[in-house]
Parts: sequence; structure tokens; C-alpha cells
Amino acid sequence: MTMKTISQNKSFGGTQGVYSHESAETGCTMRFGVYLPPAAGKGPVPVLFWLSGLTCTEENFIVKAGAQRVAAELGIALVAPDTSPRGLDYPGDSDSYDFGVGAGFYVDAVKAPWSTGYRMYSYIAKELFELVAGGFSVEASRAGIFGHSMGGHGALTIGLKHPDRFKTISAFAPIVSPTRCPWGEKALAGYLGSDRNTWADYDATLLIKRHGWSGPELLVDQGGDDQFLASQLKPELLVAACAEAKVPLNLRMQPGYDHSYFFISSFIEDHLRHHAAHL
Amino acid sequence: MTMKTISQNKSFGGTQGVYSHESAETGCTMRFGVYLPPAAGKGPVPVLFWLSGLTCTEENFIVKAGAQRVAAELGIALVAPDTSPRGLDYPGDSDSYDFGVGAGFYVDAVKAPWSTGYRMYSYIAKELFELVAGGFSVEASRAGIFGHSMGGHGALTIGLKHPDRFKTISAFAPIVSPTRCPWGEKALAGYLGSDRNTWADYDATLLIKRHGWSGPELLVDQGGDDQFLASQLKPELLVAACAEAKVPLNLRMQPGYDHSYFFISSFIEDHLRHHAAHL
Repeated sequence: MTMKTISQNKSFGGTQGVYSHESAETGCTMRFGVYLPPAAGKGPVPVLFWLSGLTCTEENFIVKAGAQRVAAELGIALVAPDTSPRGLDYPGDSDSYDFGVGAGFYVDAVKAPWSTGYRMYSYIAKELFELVAGGFSVEASRAGIFGHSMGGHGALTIGLKHPDRFKTISAFAPIVSPTRCPWGEKALAGYLGSDRNTWADYDATLLIKRHGWSGPELLVDQGGDDQFLASQLKPELLVAACAEAKVPLNLRMQPGYDHSYFFISSFIEDHLRHHAAHL
Repeated sequence: MTMKTISQNKSFGGTQGVYSHESAETGCTMRFGVYLPPAAGKGPVPVLFWLSGLTCTEENFIVKAGAQRVAAELGIALVAPDTSPRGLDYPGDSDSYDFGVGAGFYVDAVKAPWSTGYRMYSYIAKELFELVAGGFSVEASRAGIFGHSMGGHGALTIGLKHPDRFKTISAFAPIVSPTRCPWGEKALAGYLGSDRNTWADYDATLLIKRHGWSGPELLVDQGGDDQFLASQLKPELLVAACAEAKVPLNLRMQPGYDHSYFFISSFIEDHLRHHAAHL
């Protein structure tokens, strides 16, 4: 597998790179960011995978989160993939912000035409993980996963299903139960079909009840003034699932914060320190 | 003068706002960002004006610099204006990235048609300063100015000419002598005309020799791998001017850094602490 370097910029003594590769899972060219802290020059470092939300590319986290400063201090690499295939040009794939391009929802689609390229679950959990493990100065045995909104859903579901690969999980304003909110129902019906039984594999609250989680506590920050709180995010469903399954959850409601990167950047340091403490 | 609120987002316990107003200087609607730290809720705080570079709007600094975290800690407000009038639709005003829209160069134009709206010097030094002083919880007597590239030029020239208003000055990769580089020569000829004698008022190196600077040392960071270093920025001209005029300058060459916000964000904390220490 060959990678192409799109850009590299020195940042806090390390290097923020953007790379592309031909993905077997998505059948198209995929871009992703990798921040390597100064410590990566001396030997492999732990690595965090960040999954972004609806409409994002690999760029949003890289330029808006302010994570490199803390990653440099802690000696952790940051990987930031795109949120969907690009350029497949399936009919209707750009008609809405919450389905298709920019909205892969971290599932492996089974409905045509999506099933051939919309395989963001396997792309993140397997292909990209292995590409990064083999191509950068990272310790793949010390990896964590986190994300925002749709990407918080992705981080929770991928992390919960792969405790062998991801030792720590956290999220900002995650969609905790896509089987029970409009964004999730639209995406799961569109990618998986109308049989709701097939959706359970991609619902963090159901996965927690089924598989539990024996890793360190899940750290979740949620803005109290988030415009999607009641309709789409529903953190109370995660609280209930974790209580039932005796999974440790640190849900922090943050009064006055919304769904934006201004919220993420305000608390990103806590998340990096949480992962670093347990990796 | 009335202001309109475009957006407000909670950020590091304070508020990042974007506002607009009808500007008398530019004859159009102007946008600017104001970050108010938590301390501004208890009483007026010192304020820093950030001037952005070519092609930027008020947004770049707000989302990319990571300055709010430090401003919140230090209790300093941050003001981030646009870089030119918008919507005047002068012939040719969008033909190039380095003249016209997004490239006001912080001068008061005298050539038609630019002279009616391209008055970014007076807009920043007077109109916006007074608007912010009167409309936000800031101590106008404790103000500093800083910026990047074209905005570093703006910060130096406006600051040097208004020590009464701006007590501290710093810059990232500034155009230190626009009378002696292609970007500056194009802008000054276009806005002021071909008589180079009229350009001197907008050249930091000439202003330093003429007026000096009795404030705290000028802090300037310059990336060693900046693609514009030799052709446009020429920090050695600032070094020479400061030496001749006995103006204290702390020029820090930063090896490996380029001209981007990855460079700015890496050192923004030092600049905020520099201003805070002297305000």
C-alpha cells in the first residue's frame, strides 16, 4: 500500500501531515491527517484515532481542535480520517448533509449502491489502523479512539467492538443510539436497509449491554446548549446502558457549550490527558 | 453606531462572538470577531487587536490560532477584524489574491476608486478601536496590537504611529518593509500611486527610524522555512532599522516553521503572555 504526502507543516515541534492512499475498502482515494509529536522522532509513540462528525473532512479537526499542542506535550500521535468516500458519484450521494458524502456513519453498508464504497467501519477499524500502524512511528498496541457527534458514535461503536485494538474511548457530543434518533435512523435505513435487527451492531447503547467494556471509564463531554442534545444525542440513553452493564462512564455536562469546535477545543486537553493516562 | 451579532459561541468559559456594523470608513458592512474571557464578566479587561494576512477574513484567526485558551487564562479580550472592505465591487477588486478584496494592506488609499472604501488604516486605528472600546467590556487604555504577514505589517505600522492607543506590539512573519518587496510595492502603488515618497508612512522600518518606539520590546516570530522569507518578509531590514533607532527587538527565528497557522498556533501563547506582561 502506497501513501502520498499531500502536505506537511511543522506544528509544536512535531509534524502535521496530510496523506492520501487508494483504499481497498472504499474503492477511492482517501485522505487522512497524522500529527506526529516531537517524541516520535526518538521512537514509536501511542496513537489516538479521531473520528469527525457530519460534513467534515480530515481537515476540521486538524485546524480547529487545537490538539497538537497537548499531543506534543504528551508524546501522542493523532490520526484524523475523512468521514466518507469521496468521488464515487453515486446518484444522490450529495443531496443531503446527513447521508452520503461527508456522512459515512462508520458503518459497512449492505444496500446497493452504497455497499461497494461506504465501508467506513472496516476502513477505520482495519484498513486505516493497519496502514498507520505500518507506516508511521506509532505503537499500535497503545491506541485509543475518540470523536465528535457522528464521529463520537463511530468511536464508541468501533472501540467497543475492538477492545483488542482500542484501549481507551472518549467522545464529544456523541450520537449514542443511532437506532433511536433521526440522523441515525436515516443513515442506518439507507446504508443497511429497513430491517432494524441489522442495526444493533452499530448502536453504542446496545453494544454496551451486549458486550460490556472492561477498559478504563468512557469519558464523554456534552454541551448543555447543544442544539442537537434532545433530538439526536440523548446522552441519558448512554447513562442508562452503562448503568445496566456496569460500565464506568464519566459524562460531563458542560453548561452553555454548543455543538461546535469551540466546544471541542475547550475540552480537548482533558480528553488527550485521559487517553494518555490509560495508554 | 449599531452592531449586529452574527454568532456567539462559548469557548474556554468565555464567549467568542462575531459581529457586524456599517463602517463609515469603508462604506460597507464590516465583520469582526471579539473573544471575551471569563474575567470580562466581572469588569473591563485588556484587549489585543489581531490583524490577519492576505486572503483572510475575520474567521481564520478565530478558528485556527488557538488563542482563546490563553486569553481566557490571562483575562484578555481578542479582536479580529476582516482584511478589507467586502461587497464594494470595484472593477478588478477580486482579480488577484494580493490586491483588493482580502488585501486592504492597512492603508488609507488615495487613488480612485480605492480611496472611497479602502481605508483599513483608519478603520482599524480609529473606527474599530473606538467601536470596541465603547461596545465591549474592555479597558481601551490597556490595548496591544499584533498580526501575521500583511497583518504583521499592519500591526507594526499602526502600533508605531499610535503609541497612545497601542502599548504593545508583536508580529508573526511580518512584511517589515512594503516599500521593498513585491507584495508591498504592488499594494502601495495601487492604493497610493506611484510617488514613493507617499509610501513611507506605511513602512515599519522607515517609521522606526523616524519615530522610534519607546514601548516594550517588539516581539517578532519568523519561520525559518517560510516560503516568503527572502522575497517578501526580509526580517533583516527590521533588525537593521531597530538597531539604528535603538528600538528593542526580540526577533526569534523558528527553524522548520512555514507561513501557515500551524506556525502561528505554535507560538501564539508566547505572544499573548508578552502582551499581558506589559499591559
